[in-house]
Amino acid sequence: MNAPKIDFAKMGGLIPAVVQDAKTGEILMLAFQNQEAFDQTVATKEVYFFSRSRQKLWKKGETSGNVLKVVEVLADCDDDSIIIKVAHDPDMKACHTGARNCFFKKVL
Amino acid sequence: MNAPKIDFAKMGGLIPAVVQDAKTGEILMLAFQNQEAFDQTVATKEVYFFSRSRQKLWKKGETSGNVLKVVEVLADCDDDSIIIKVAHDPDMKACHTGARNCFFKKVL
Repeated sequence: MNAPKIDFAKMGGLIPAVVQDAKTGEILMLAFQNQEAFDQTVATKEVYFFSRSRQKLWKKGETSGNVLKVVEVLADCDDDSIIIKVAHDPDMKACHTGARNCFFKKVL
Repeated sequence: MNAPKIDFAKMGGLIPAVVQDAKTGEILMLAFQNQEAFDQTVATKEVYFFSRSRQKLWKKGETSGNVLKVVEVLADCDDDSIIIKVAHDPDMKACHTGARNCFFKKVL
């Protein structure tokens, strides 16, 4: 099967990208990619995002050291969101707060 | 801990919501919620979204029968995305294509 063509048009050039631990299924973080961040991620097998606050390409872990190593990338049925499965790392601090993952606030 | 106040302002009233099987960690789908869809989800413990194409509230499974039963809701560090963990259902067809989950297109 050919790789799907991602639809960046729907949301002003951005798609949500969910980062998931390939081994455990834990969701580490969610951020946005533009075409360049997506292309860089596929080409380098390290995860890039587009920072909405800084309006620029952002390599995850560039300053923190918490680089995310890509294992697999999957697009959804509408080609407008992706899952990036990354190598399991027991010492990962994916969140900028220092937490292992970003989803630590209980709503319900 | 008090429930976090979700920040809907950042993306024109919408946040991405990732639906994850609470038992297996499988990501079933990703869609968007506005304040109303979020509130309805928390109040009813069934999953609601905001349809961007139809510009209206949308109860997941309303026509297909594939209602998603909420087990837990977690917000991220910035309060601008959420994970909705749902009850495991081996017969779930979360995707409108009839697939179990929406992420069946391999990019890498």
